[in-house]
Amino acid sequence: MPTIAPPDAACAERVARYLDTLTKPPGSLGRLEALAVALAGITGEDFPRVTPPGVVVFAADHGVAEEGVSAFPQSVTAQMVANFVAGGAAINAFARRLGARLEVVDTGVAADLSGAGIVHDRVRSGTANLAREDAMRRDEAEAALAVGRRAAGRAAEAGCRCLIAGEMGIANTTASSAMLAALTGTPVAELVGPGTGVSGDALARKRAVIEAALAERAPDPADPLGVLAALGGLEIAAMAGAYLEAAARRLPVLVDGFIATVAALTACRLDPALRPYLIFGHRAREPGHARALAALEAEPLLDLELRLGEGTGAALAFPLLEAATAMLGEMATFADAGVDGREAT
Amino acid sequence: MPTIAPPDAACAERVARYLDTLTKPPGSLGRLEALAVALAGITGEDFPRVTPPGVVVFAADHGVAEEGVSAFPQSVTAQMVANFVAGGAAINAFARRLGARLEVVDTGVAADLSGAGIVHDRVRSGTANLAREDAMRRDEAEAALAVGRRAAGRAAEAGCRCLIAGEMGIANTTASSAMLAALTGTPVAELVGPGTGVSGDALARKRAVIEAALAERAPDPADPLGVLAALGGLEIAAMAGAYLEAAARRLPVLVDGFIATVAALTACRLDPALRPYLIFGHRAREPGHARALAALEAEPLLDLELRLGEGTGAALAFPLLEAATAMLGEMATFADAGVDGREAT
Repeated sequence: MPTIAPPDAACAERVARYLDTLTKPPGSLGRLEALAVALAGITGEDFPRVTPPGVVVFAADHGVAEEGVSAFPQSVTAQMVANFVAGGAAINAFARRLGARLEVVDTGVAADLSGAGIVHDRVRSGTANLAREDAMRRDEAEAALAVGRRAAGRAAEAGCRCLIAGEMGIANTTASSAMLAALTGTPVAELVGPGTGVSGDALARKRAVIEAALAERAPDPADPLGVLAALGGLEIAAMAGAYLEAAARRLPVLVDGFIATVAALTACRLDPALRPYLIFGHRAREPGHARALAALEAEPLLDLELRLGEGTGAALAFPLLEAATAMLGEMATFADAGVDGREAT
Repeated sequence: MPTIAPPDAACAERVARYLDTLTKPPGSLGRLEALAVALAGITGEDFPRVTPPGVVVFAADHGVAEEGVSAFPQSVTAQMVANFVAGGAAINAFARRLGARLEVVDTGVAADLSGAGIVHDRVRSGTANLAREDAMRRDEAEAALAVGRRAAGRAAEAGCRCLIAGEMGIANTTASSAMLAALTGTPVAELVGPGTGVSGDALARKRAVIEAALAERAPDPADPLGVLAALGGLEIAAMAGAYLEAAARRLPVLVDGFIATVAALTACRLDPALRPYLIFGHRAREPGHARALAALEAEPLLDLELRLGEGTGAALAFPLLEAATAMLGEMATFADAGVDGREAT
């Protein structure tokens, strides 16, 4: 696994002091100032840049979809990959506005996705049904982590200065909820919500499927790779791998919603040195998200009641990172602008 | 006063239905979807545009600054206007990222601001000290409203599709807090906070000044122009005028923080038809802001603990409006993309 160095505390400290010389009351730009300090520590640069961002959408299928846990049929995973390639999905519209490099990685969709515009880096054709058996073998979980590491490496080598990982995989809130319950010991009833749209009987079925899977698979919470193999998804593992690689390369990671946060939690369990490299984009509506964020002591930037995935919430938050760097790089100091500082009060 | 038409409900309804045909689970983009519907109603366009935004920063001085209610000396108002013109303030850095048209209007700074890059549309050289007498006459308050109307008109005629008003005026949280207390009947102790940085004895003095002014001036809460004249500021009145004019021209208004929200509340008291044209950018740290937002039943898009003003919080929220229009204009429908819709569940 790549080594993650601690953030550059001296650089962060210099930037925190410099912020107080800029033409604004000290601290008056609130969380944007904390963001600038965090970005300085992550990148080791006094004037960090985050543009262009690299958005990688990992797509894979889930055997557990056959249990009827999603509002959409499994075929939608492959159809949405085609939609990403054609540029018609929400993440396309948002990534375009950011000038982002967008890559779609087939990590294991259960359909033949020939054609241009997709990176084919498949571990297996969808996971097994976690309600009946382990979703994948440990070595497959490791291979999926490596898919993500390669994707983050490509983004970094293409000049991206910030990593956003998105996902597409019908039934992946089921896998993520199961993983989160296993990793944190939280009761399933507190975690599991509508995903992208189940309710009523279907929601009850989803909860029952997860509870049964937890009882049967019973992975060791102290073994994150085991949790990933027993209950996870190929795209969830790939996201975790991408986060670890980005941090090893000192790239800030902007985490999306519920599934991305479960991937981030898993990655932090694999290597706690990752945590300071993570910035959380938004608080999603899925009930488990609050629990996953709490486990990471994370406070997201946005709260817009999103429940889509694909990296959309992170993409919506990205302009705040850009603004934080613009504040640092473009504002005049009190001295340069000839503005009187605070009176002694 | 210009006439404000109600939003186009038929257009809003069409857009709400269209959103459910796009390749995402219905409602999964949360508040962004509500934003798209609101923008359609405001503009009357099925595919509204908000770019470029027009940012107008109104600057003026406050006689009450002599009571020592601010952490900064009054000279800072004029110095910050020079900083806006030179491009070194926070609003410059943020407006630049948006490709915004930025205009700085001297509405009544108590200093000679000759030189290029400033619109000179002065009503008087700062307000009177509201602790001792009315801040301005009624006809001066009307003239300041007209300054704002002219500025919004210029922005609209220059092709701007969204209005952001910012302010600069040392001691203007004092004036805004007094206005808010008068308009809503809220006790001063619940409203008044640090502004851009007072605390301890200075904060107690600020509260005492406002309470005394409310007792002495005692404007009629049902007479918003009277409240503006007795306790307001020239830039606050100009913001209110700009909002009214923008709405009359069917431009969405993106409201900034505490002072902007008090201006918006005042403008809504002058003409309640304004309210649906207002989108609130962020929740500021100033305690009175929550009260002002509640009076308008407003839920801002961002909560980043800002307390700067200048229009910065609205500028930071603007990319969300752009994203809402991109969602509407660029996403494929389920039918076009060949993606299966929801199963009946």
